[in-house]
Amino acid sequence: MVEVKFEQISPADFFYRNRDIAGFSSPARSLYMSIRELVENSLDACEVGKILPEISIELASEGGEGEGGNEIYRLVVRDNGIGVDGDNIPKAFGTILYGSKYGFKQSRGTFGVGGTMALLYGQITTNRPFRIVSSQGKGKIYEYQLMIDIVSNEPRIIDKRVIENKDGWRGTIVDFTLEADYSTSKPKIVEYLKMTSLINPHANISFIDPKGRFYFFRRVTEQVPEPPREAKPHPQGVDAETVSRIAAETKARSVLRMLVEEFQRVGEKTAMDVLKLASIDPHTRPRDLTHEQVAQLVNVMRNYQGFRAPDTTSLSPVGAAFLEAGVKALFKPEFYHIVQRPPTSYSGIPFIVEVAVAWGGAIPQTEDIHLYRFANKIPLLYDERADVSWKVISEKIDWAAYKVPKQAPLAVITSICSPKVPYKTVGKEAIADRPEIERELTLAVRECARFLRGYLSRLEKREAVKKRLNIYAKYLPKIAKFSAELADKEPPQIKSLLKKIGVTDEMLKEAERIEAEEAEQLYESTPG
Amino acid sequence: MVEVKFEQISPADFFYRNRDIAGFSSPARSLYMSIRELVENSLDACEVGKILPEISIELASEGGEGEGGNEIYRLVVRDNGIGVDGDNIPKAFGTILYGSKYGFKQSRGTFGVGGTMALLYGQITTNRPFRIVSSQGKGKIYEYQLMIDIVSNEPRIIDKRVIENKDGWRGTIVDFTLEADYSTSKPKIVEYLKMTSLINPHANISFIDPKGRFYFFRRVTEQVPEPPREAKPHPQGVDAETVSRIAAETKARSVLRMLVEEFQRVGEKTAMDVLKLASIDPHTRPRDLTHEQVAQLVNVMRNYQGFRAPDTTSLSPVGAAFLEAGVKALFKPEFYHIVQRPPTSYSGIPFIVEVAVAWGGAIPQTEDIHLYRFANKIPLLYDERADVSWKVISEKIDWAAYKVPKQAPLAVITSICSPKVPYKTVGKEAIADRPEIERELTLAVRECARFLRGYLSRLEKREAVKKRLNIYAKYLPKIAKFSAELADKEPPQIKSLLKKIGVTDEMLKEAERIEAEEAEQLYESTPG
Repeated sequence: MVEVKFEQISPADFFYRNRDIAGFSSPARSLYMSIRELVENSLDACEVGKILPEISIELASEGGEGEGGNEIYRLVVRDNGIGVDGDNIPKAFGTILYGSKYGFKQSRGTFGVGGTMALLYGQITTNRPFRIVSSQGKGKIYEYQLMIDIVSNEPRIIDKRVIENKDGWRGTIVDFTLEADYSTSKPKIVEYLKMTSLINPHANISFIDPKGRFYFFRRVTEQVPEPPREAKPHPQGVDAETVSRIAAETKARSVLRMLVEEFQRVGEKTAMDVLKLASIDPHTRPRDLTHEQVAQLVNVMRNYQGFRAPDTTSLSPVGAAFLEAGVKALFKPEFYHIVQRPPTSYSGIPFIVEVAVAWGGAIPQTEDIHLYRFANKIPLLYDERADVSWKVISEKIDWAAYKVPKQAPLAVITSICSPKVPYKTVGKEAIADRPEIERELTLAVRECARFLRGYLSRLEKREAVKKRLNIYAKYLPKIAKFSAELADKEPPQIKSLLKKIGVTDEMLKEAERIEAEEAEQLYESTPG
Repeated sequence: MVEVKFEQISPADFFYRNRDIAGFSSPARSLYMSIRELVENSLDACEVGKILPEISIELASEGGEGEGGNEIYRLVVRDNGIGVDGDNIPKAFGTILYGSKYGFKQSRGTFGVGGTMALLYGQITTNRPFRIVSSQGKGKIYEYQLMIDIVSNEPRIIDKRVIENKDGWRGTIVDFTLEADYSTSKPKIVEYLKMTSLINPHANISFIDPKGRFYFFRRVTEQVPEPPREAKPHPQGVDAETVSRIAAETKARSVLRMLVEEFQRVGEKTAMDVLKLASIDPHTRPRDLTHEQVAQLVNVMRNYQGFRAPDTTSLSPVGAAFLEAGVKALFKPEFYHIVQRPPTSYSGIPFIVEVAVAWGGAIPQTEDIHLYRFANKIPLLYDERADVSWKVISEKIDWAAYKVPKQAPLAVITSICSPKVPYKTVGKEAIADRPEIERELTLAVRECARFLRGYLSRLEKREAVKKRLNIYAKYLPKIAKFSAELADKEPPQIKSLLKKIGVTDEMLKEAERIEAEEAEQLYESTPG
């Protein structure tokens, strides 16, 4: 008989062994991921407190080699968010799968891993502790030097200081070293910050890179978006696990009251209906529900047609005004149009789609459309071709029908917000093509494209008019001159006449300039 | 001040919330993943006991809808592996991140998640317990009905039976229900089983699908491969975390003895050298090493040039004989060549590359080369274009230089074995292009390609000879006839003459047939 020893490992140990699973693969990608995870934590920490974000990122070379033989960098991310209370700092930053309470709420983070994962990656690759400084403003300032005990998934406190907070400073500083490859990841990092500022136009974000270059993304609005609220689950979207947990935790005395109190959009009549279909006595105490009854209840709720649509007030979309400010700041476009679709849902989970289409300005003229994707106010930079937005703009829209030429200075910005974005990949980079999301995106892009067609038509007409006037500018003075010569008279003053039909002095000068140029070219190209 | 509540979640809860992270996304992909994970566990359970695997998979429709509205299936996977001892069954199958003790050893599984994840997925989507039956042959048979308590990550025993094992049955049966989409995943599942049998030609694998179709992949060799052995870590490949753990667990009394006893390829002289460079007293007790000393030691070991190359005897490559049997069974090719490269290493981690190139037979003639990838004896079916093997055959090899035409019946099979395969993706589907691995693959494919060129050259020559002889067959009899007529004589019997130079009766008949055909075509195409 072969002896096999079994062991259980901690979540920290799991991610230590398989850091690629969280996107921490190469030194370049890991640096990108670290910055991204910390910036997103900072944005969430500001949003929840309705604070105008001030986020600064400093990256400097530390010299020396990390675990994989690459350069060691020091990364410091500072924010003015709500802070973390002193006692919670070690666990919040030094324990994997420990985070702010999970709820049915829109937020940037999804996995409860990201921030700590960056610190774990730094520790693995450089063997140094990390420093966390935080204050909630009213209390003291706490400064910790921490390491993660990987085997037990517990923080190890190397040093702790409590400082008087005379100025009422509030925020969090994360300061650690990691093995990285900045030169490879630089384009993605700068693009990430640029896009983050586009979709969070109320944030000031600064970045000092290892060469001392200073990037500053200044806020273009002072308006703080409404923080997303937590919502009760919609009965159509829940599974048996969720219902079991609710039954174990609810204060409701009966399963009837549980349905009404713990779910959204369920009135007493609906609850009675559902319980009858599930053959469950409405007076049953939630804790007494058997496993079979829970399964049966979930089954009935999934197929029940009488629920009202999911409540969407918990969503926090970007908003047309914010999108507009961002689009203008980034592209200075000649034309743009923004569409916010009404809230809707997939499998009981609410979502909102917003789309902006922009033309001209700083947008380069290329064959590919410039696609910018966002989900819950974070930019998605990898795996573009795998995303539902790419599918929509490349397969579902016939751009020629909207007068868009093959080479065009065209940008499409898509944004989806939802308490559960259906990501296809672990790294939160590509969104799955759920039919409901695909449909909403297609409708929004189409509406934008119709307005773009209007703009391009007007542009076309204006061009046609201008072309006609240019011909007038070129030939009318000549005709006047010739006619006068033929009649042996002084040429008439036709400038005021031309002005009446729209030919300006500039057009006349331009026509003369072009003619002189053409004459010269003719002279140069004439042989001999 | 905003109140934020924190909570810690269990690994099971993490994967319940983020099952996509383990590859369990759509109902089609989840079925593929479930079968794959369970088959790989079964193969490992046989390999470790040097058992000829008998694995059977049964998939049947259960009717009804799962959590996501798709059909519910029942999946039963049986093997004759070493079994799991009765007391360990609940935890081994009902706890995430609990598995056979992790060591520096080649195995199919990497994450210690897969098998339990399939059962968790089944539970989430169908709300039913799963059944595990297992025996180690000598003891009793244990049968459990289990569910996973997701919040606590503990198994919940629904039912337990202990059965007399009169016939000495040994093996494991996993029996559960899951929401799935068989029709979409069928091609991948069948391909997976076919490829698994190619690379594990000593296994019998059977599959009964929901339509009652029976697929049987019969073993083509009775030879059981040597199970991979556990190896001590090579000093060049370890990080500070590993060294700290070794220092905490070792029985060695001094750091000098620790280096000699706990690492491979380290003699006393080398150990003294390394410790001197790291400025560590060789008599230091391992438990007394400071964090800085560990970091310093790792740093010195990484850059020390005096270590011997990593020990590769712990690797278990497929082997030329096994590869040959597999290639023959699957393709019945006209030509094949197999190369096994000598063991080598990347970042201190040993690996072996094996490559087979096959031509003709059942391989379809297409423009793309048919690539079959394996890692630690599992087939990789997704993300082909992201894999280092694809890079090698599409960018590093100029196939035209090896006389391979654009359209060719060409298959390339690559296999890598290593205690740590550098996967790029979570789903264990694509291998990163580490320079050392890329180099080994390129050398192996080139060597195969050279042999292929030899074969194709011979084929070309044979074709040229045959063409020449066909010309003889066509014209010599005519010339003989004409000459005879000119000389007014009976035509000579030239058949024996022709036979001498290689023209057979068949060739003559074929030449006559072709001529008749051509005459007919000429007649048909003549106008009027």
